[in-house]
Amino acid sequence: MYGWRSKIGLIVPSSNTTMESEFWTMAPKGVSVHTARMNLRDVTEKALIEMESYAKAAAKRLADAEVDIIMYGCTSGSLVKGRGYDKKISQELERHSGIRAVTTSTAVLEALKELGISKVAVATPYIGAVNAKEKQFLEENGIDVLRMEGLGIVRNTEIGKQEPWVAYNLAKSVYSSEADGIFISCTNFRTIEVIDFLEIDLGVPVITSNQASMWFVLRNLGIKEKYKKYGTLMKEHL
Amino acid sequence: MYGWRSKIGLIVPSSNTTMESEFWTMAPKGVSVHTARMNLRDVTEKALIEMESYAKAAAKRLADAEVDIIMYGCTSGSLVKGRGYDKKISQELERHSGIRAVTTSTAVLEALKELGISKVAVATPYIGAVNAKEKQFLEENGIDVLRMEGLGIVRNTEIGKQEPWVAYNLAKSVYSSEADGIFISCTNFRTIEVIDFLEIDLGVPVITSNQASMWFVLRNLGIKEKYKKYGTLMKEHL
Amino acid sequence: MYGWRSKIGLIVPSSNTTMESEFWTMAPKGVSVHTARMNLRDVTEKALIEMESYAKAAAKRLADAEVDIIMYGCTSGSLVKGRGYDKKISQELERHSGIRAVTTSTAVLEALKELGISKVAVATPYIGAVNAKEKQFLEENGIDVLRMEGLGIVRNTEIGKQEPWVAYNLAKSVYSSEADGIFISCTNFRTIEVIDFLEIDLGVPVITSNQASMWFVLRNLGIKEKYKKYGTLMKEHL
Amino acid sequence: MYGWRSKIGLIVPSSNTTMESEFWTMAPKGVSVHTARMNLRDVTEKALIEMESYAKAAAKRLADAEVDIIMYGCTSGSLVKGRGYDKKISQELERHSGIRAVTTSTAVLEALKELGISKVAVATPYIGAVNAKEKQFLEENGIDVLRMEGLGIVRNTEIGKQEPWVAYNLAKSVYSSEADGIFISCTNFRTIEVIDFLEIDLGVPVITSNQASMWFVLRNLGIKEKYKKYGTLMKEHL
Amino acid sequence: MYGWRSKIGLIVPSSNTTMESEFWTMAPKGVSVHTARMNLRDVTEKALIEMESYAKAAAKRLADAEVDIIMYGCTSGSLVKGRGYDKKISQELERHSGIRAVTTSTAVLEALKELGISKVAVATPYIGAVNAKEKQFLEENGIDVLRMEGLGIVRNTEIGKQEPWVAYNLAKSVYSSEADGIFISCTNFRTIEVIDFLEIDLGVPVITSNQASMWFVLRNLGIKEKYKKYGTLMKEHL
Amino acid sequence: MYGWRSKIGLIVPSSNTTMESEFWTMAPKGVSVHTARMNLRDVTEKALIEMESYAKAAAKRLADAEVDIIMYGCTSGSLVKGRGYDKKISQELERHSGIRAVTTSTAVLEALKELGISKVAVATPYIGAVNAKEKQFLEENGIDVLRMEGLGIVRNTEIGKQEPWVAYNLAKSVYSSEADGIFISCTNFRTIEVIDFLEIDLGVPVITSNQASMWFVLRNLGIKEKYKKYGTLMKEHL
Amino acid sequence: MYGWRSKIGLIVPSSNTTMESEFWTMAPKGVSVHTARMNLRDVTEKALIEMESYAKAAAKRLADAEVDIIMYGCTSGSLVKGRGYDKKISQELERHSGIRAVTTSTAVLEALKELGISKVAVATPYIGAVNAKEKQFLEENGIDVLRMEGLGIVRNTEIGKQEPWVAYNLAKSVYSSEADGIFISCTNFRTIEVIDFLEIDLGVPVITSNQASMWFVLRNLGIKEKYKKYGTLMKEHL
Amino acid sequence: MYGWRSKIGLIVPSSNTTMESEFWTMAPKGVSVHTARMNLRDVTEKALIEMESYAKAAAKRLADAEVDIIMYGCTSGSLVKGRGYDKKISQELERHSGIRAVTTSTAVLEALKELGISKVAVATPYIGAVNAKEKQFLEENGIDVLRMEGLGIVRNTEIGKQEPWVAYNLAKSVYSSEADGIFISCTNFRTIEVIDFLEIDLGVPVITSNQASMWFVLRNLGIKEKYKKYGTLMKEHL
Repeated sequence: MYGWRSKIGLIVPSSNTTMESEFWTMAPKGVSVHTARMNLRDVTEKALIEMESYAKAAAKRLADAEVDIIMYGCTSGSLVKGRGYDKKISQELERHSGIRAVTTSTAVLEALKELGISKVAVATPYIGAVNAKEKQFLEENGIDVLRMEGLGIVRNTEIGKQEPWVAYNLAKSVYSSEADGIFISCTNFRTIEVIDFLEIDLGVPVITSNQASMWFVLRNLGIKEKYKKYGTLMKEHL
Repeated sequence: MYGWRSKIGLIVPSSNTTMESEFWTMAPKGVSVHTARMNLRDVTEKALIEMESYAKAAAKRLADAEVDIIMYGCTSGSLVKGRGYDKKISQELERHSGIRAVTTSTAVLEALKELGISKVAVATPYIGAVNAKEKQFLEENGIDVLRMEGLGIVRNTEIGKQEPWVAYNLAKSVYSSEADGIFISCTNFRTIEVIDFLEIDLGVPVITSNQASMWFVLRNLGIKEKYKKYGTLMKEHL
Repeated sequence: MYGWRSKIGLIVPSSNTTMESEFWTMAPKGVSVHTARMNLRDVTEKALIEMESYAKAAAKRLADAEVDIIMYGCTSGSLVKGRGYDKKISQELERHSGIRAVTTSTAVLEALKELGISKVAVATPYIGAVNAKEKQFLEENGIDVLRMEGLGIVRNTEIGKQEPWVAYNLAKSVYSSEADGIFISCTNFRTIEVIDFLEIDLGVPVITSNQASMWFVLRNLGIKEKYKKYGTLMKEHL
Repeated sequence: MYGWRSKIGLIVPSSNTTMESEFWTMAPKGVSVHTARMNLRDVTEKALIEMESYAKAAAKRLADAEVDIIMYGCTSGSLVKGRGYDKKISQELERHSGIRAVTTSTAVLEALKELGISKVAVATPYIGAVNAKEKQFLEENGIDVLRMEGLGIVRNTEIGKQEPWVAYNLAKSVYSSEADGIFISCTNFRTIEVIDFLEIDLGVPVITSNQASMWFVLRNLGIKEKYKKYGTLMKEHL
Repeated sequence: MYGWRSKIGLIVPSSNTTMESEFWTMAPKGVSVHTARMNLRDVTEKALIEMESYAKAAAKRLADAEVDIIMYGCTSGSLVKGRGYDKKISQELERHSGIRAVTTSTAVLEALKELGISKVAVATPYIGAVNAKEKQFLEENGIDVLRMEGLGIVRNTEIGKQEPWVAYNLAKSVYSSEADGIFISCTNFRTIEVIDFLEIDLGVPVITSNQASMWFVLRNLGIKEKYKKYGTLMKEHL
Repeated sequence: MYGWRSKIGLIVPSSNTTMESEFWTMAPKGVSVHTARMNLRDVTEKALIEMESYAKAAAKRLADAEVDIIMYGCTSGSLVKGRGYDKKISQELERHSGIRAVTTSTAVLEALKELGISKVAVATPYIGAVNAKEKQFLEENGIDVLRMEGLGIVRNTEIGKQEPWVAYNLAKSVYSSEADGIFISCTNFRTIEVIDFLEIDLGVPVITSNQASMWFVLRNLGIKEKYKKYGTLMKEHL
Repeated sequence: MYGWRSKIGLIVPSSNTTMESEFWTMAPKGVSVHTARMNLRDVTEKALIEMESYAKAAAKRLADAEVDIIMYGCTSGSLVKGRGYDKKISQELERHSGIRAVTTSTAVLEALKELGISKVAVATPYIGAVNAKEKQFLEENGIDVLRMEGLGIVRNTEIGKQEPWVAYNLAKSVYSSEADGIFISCTNFRTIEVIDFLEIDLGVPVITSNQASMWFVLRNLGIKEKYKKYGTLMKEHL
Repeated sequence: MYGWRSKIGLIVPSSNTTMESEFWTMAPKGVSVHTARMNLRDVTEKALIEMESYAKAAAKRLADAEVDIIMYGCTSGSLVKGRGYDKKISQELERHSGIRAVTTSTAVLEALKELGISKVAVATPYIGAVNAKEKQFLEENGIDVLRMEGLGIVRNTEIGKQEPWVAYNLAKSVYSSEADGIFISCTNFRTIEVIDFLEIDLGVPVITSNQASMWFVLRNLGIKEKYKKYGTLMKEHL
């Protein structure tokens, strides 16, 4: 049986072309990934808020597959309404589907806490308005955002076309030595190939949306895989 | 970019736990898989017919990801209304999404034709009523069904729990020497690990729902990967 | 010479289809496995007791192969008459064959002791009556059985058809945090592929009938192989 | 399930320490081996004839494991009473166990026929009296024994201690250019590592008792594995 | 000694960041690459013509390293003055350095001829003006340019940032079934990872500037390496 | 993009045939090497001094490739005018190219300091006059040269023909137990294959021109690769 | 150059068929083995003493190959005349050849000392008379021989035919828990494949003639290879 | 047993440091090499003739090891007295040792004949006088020596220090298109790494002294190994 160890239900924005690939790549042996989509084309505040309305139906479909957990796989989409929005989404999905549910934003907050990062440098593919929401959300949750830089991309499929080294160089340019760690945001932004290079070269832990999402899912499922890559979070904190 | 060679949009019944895994496993380098779901829990005639109503919205979501093709990934679901039903579904999905669309049943018919199989032995996990629909569909399309055997399972997640060797032994028991080939039906029935064993041991080509679906998708995309496994169809007919 | 380091004589119930495979898989370099059978079809109290009458002849045949040790490879069969029954069987086999002999039940008790497990969660494929005998045996030997769950299967060949992930999920469901460890019983129940996954995910040592049997055999033979899998018992206690 | 493709029931002389190892080594993926023993210590005419009396009970035990075929794994033991003795044993085992049964001697005859060998050089570990029986059996079955040489060993466990290169050199010394092929006799005589070396160096096909036994079992099971070693018989005639 | 089989002297435009990497990757065992640079920043007609003035000094420096051949590694730079310009450059470099010299444009023409391609589809990263020069050069040399498409990039370092899949998709879009083959132009445009994918998917041979340059160098050096990748030209025409 | 992690600009003497190979071999993933040359044929004091005049133009060409650092890759050439000459060269190159620049001699001094080597044994391919300059430079920089031995080769291409084991044996013969470490000089002298053998056999750290150059370049780039070879410097001091 | 790191000159008894193989197998990278022979057929006291007369000429021939050290590769042959005989042989060989020379017996004594073994169990292939000489030699050198067992073989080529597992089992049978270690004697007795098995299974260091000979040679050559096998001596004492 | 398939006795000039290494590298599985030496320091006519006087004693020593064949491993040494000298040596060695014996020169002649080479280009490390003898020998045996070039080295250990690429380049320079093949002479001249490169690059078969010697030995032993390297002779003519 595929997913004999656990089945992950994954809800992604419809235009996301990255998260499924990175989840399948990181999935431990015996863990399968099952995807449903909610409508989104542009990464704007308005679109992100509208997107949520599609999430419940998606969660119900994943419940049909008897998944063990549901991940609401969108960073900005789970923080756009500020502090507590991530938890609110999880609770609603759980109520409708009867399955435990979590979001990327909660995962990122938990990962920052787990690694003791309170001063963070943030790299994103977003436009300024979305970056502002993210900064606010992190600071309301007690994280000091030292520096933040975005690529200014609106169209989500354009974000999905960026190579991992774009994230590498963006993260390197946003880093400063006062930062406890780096956070690379967006589940449609490729990062998993460069996390270890960044950690080796900069000497601080690196958190990214998809890595933190997988980590938090595994934590909740009680799967303590021994990873040899994907950063300190995955290698030492499961 | 994930899917730089091609992006496959895959629509599966919500309770299917197998097709995503088998598609990711078979996907050539540079080809990515993006999934959407349509509601289905039991594999009955009634449920299969209702399921179709969810397909258009799913196709539209996949269009947001700019996929290059859409696969309606359900065998019985794309034949339950008899000859021509498969083509009708494709056309509607294309009209709504603006993306080329195909179905598993069409893929199976094309694969049988490609391999010159006119007399086939069929193994399925289905109940009798669904088997009857499948037999009718194949015969209306000019395929002689020599023998057919089903596991009699209604609940789709139960089908997803069957190991590949169940398919192997079922196929072996349904085979007789007059058959030109074997068809193992159902996109939720694991088969890709045993196709080559069956072909070696029985000496006839073996077609399965997921293998034929991937083959037909690649054909339509113009990707002529050189496979070393997954049966004659994949190894010699791309 | 096959078995130049040691030759293991293995007596299995005639209907057992798992233990030979798992023993050959785990056997260290230079160690060979030689099997004889004693009649058993159903795993019931009555049948298990009758089975013993075939063991002596089996042991004598293995003595002809000049094996270095004889393993009576059946858990329930070596505990069905309660405390001390395992030792009684060993002694009789030694007397008849002139070869050192041990049983699975003794191996399990020694393994529990070696790992300091006094409160155990037990997963089995057995029916209630056999489970009751096993619980009694363990408790008479000073082991506290916190929870115990069985699949309720009578026919031994049916047990042999269960995949390792059945054992994984059964063990996970029977585990509770008060347990010092887990014991998965039955030499016909596949487990060796999932022992390490269980230990990683649950954080306690896992003992299974075939693993403990091999461990105890190697201990008695003075073979201190450095295993990299098959659980804490094999990796750290040889 | 172990043996999902097929389960082989193997009956060996109790003192045989080689055939189980060579069968496990050659077994294709999905094929398992299940052993029972019949009493024998010395390889003499008298002992071989007595041994047969234990075979039926052994076959019945293997039937409990629901094996797909039973191999009576002894060359001299299945030919000692001359032409037809091999078939007589098979028939009796089938009658008692309800399972298809074959013997090593039949396998060897079929292999010689398959490869078109009518003039053979024979290497054995046996004493002269057993060699004489073997020569007679082969010639009664239409095979011309050009040359035959034995190591003269009585005790079966002593045969099991001979390294494969003993068979290699014995076969080389018994070979002459008029021979169509070589037959290395005895299921307790290690050969599978040297078959290909012999075929490369001498340029004729080489048949050995365990290789031919496995080949004939697979033929009967309809398993057409593509071997890359173990001689022409296995590589080109399945 | 590095380069014991042959030492290649490579002259590249100063802003080229791709050709050295692709030459080192394709270099056969025992062949080393030694680079010198000539000034160029933008890929414009004017700059390409000026660049040539730096080539002779570069060639002389490579002569100091006792290289066995000199490659003028720039496509547009060796054709910008039309038919015969490539040969004129080679001759001048040979005169100054005393070492055999060739250019990329000559290599491309020879490769097209070798593969019998007379109707070609051309993909480039260039601006229209440079494309026009290339089209003229090819047609003056008897090659029919069916279709041609450029990315319109002026800055050479920007060309060097394009991933291989950009070339893959550009080539696919420029291809039509009347073409005998595809030519992807520019030594600063990454292609070697996608040549075989293109050939598999489109079924026609693919020539690229760096592949053709290496092929022509090896031809001239008399090195007939057996390649397993980098297209028909490298796999079957050395 | 080649060099996505960093692009190294390398200036070598025109007759050097070793440094490019060793730099490509040692370059970490994502780091590319881009070469320019300055005229030199013989390794004499006079020629080394003249060579410097070509360096600025070379650096400018590398700046066109937007390299992240420039390495003046010549040991004797960056020390021939004594203490401070190495720094003077770097500064001039930086001024002309606008890119950070370093030299081999500075790299060697930094490496000696990093490893705490104050008494060093030196092996070179040079003639006596050049050795004298090197000794003077090292001692002016506070390094005690215990012993020094040269191969006495003038022609630089002849140096490039020496196998690594020449360096191994020369280094072994120059070593004495009072030395804190060994320095093998010359960027055209092959050493990277024997550094670890020397360190294992002699028990002291070994510095070589190309290894130290790469180490110093990576240090300056902030790339902290985990090497498993190329000596203590590379394995433990990045 | 073969042997660029060191060239070992090896003198073996003419009938020895093992030591060359084991030396080539254990030789570190860059170390070559060059053999000469001295006449010996039977391993008797008389023959061993006569053999020495051929050693000087053999050593001179090896000096022609400019080897770095000469190993007199015979255990009993370098101890048969009692304490000091080993050193006397070395000195004479050095005098005649001008090359440093050592013997197996010296190597064994040094190895025992290095590992702190004063009470040893000894396994040999020798006859009693040779064993007696060996016991005397070891005890004169301060080693307590707890137990000693020999295979009683006179003909040296017969010793060379013994498989490594013969040494394994002989060593296991001669071992008792009071022993600090085991010594398996004779350079013609195969052991290197079983040293680590013995150390794992018995928990004490194991010294064998060829292993100790290679170890002592490397020690004298200053080669501190990091072995991963061949026992504690090779893994931890170079 | 080492050499269970065959044991090769190898007689080399005392100063040869290459042939043992190349024979061990090329030896098929189950074939061992046993060496004896005959005195030689310089490769001069006089020294080569004197050397022969040591060969008989060497052969006798190898007979003690019960080798299956003896190779007189010296090219010039087995042809220096002209046509028939090679056969004369073999015969004498056979008479003294009782073991079949062959020489390198015979092997070379047989290899040339096998490959149908009648016009050969010859590369050697020898001085002119030795080259003259070789030319005469080849021509007396019907081989037309088109061109011949030597390195002019007298001291044999100096020959042993030449890297394989020296042979590669020498062979390439001596080759002309009229030649049917190339012969690289001298058992102390390293060649086996470059044979296949030469054959690929020049397109004619390449024979070298050690390759031909091993080929002829295997031919005589009836070992028909399937080589994947070491030239046409080894790959296609065993």
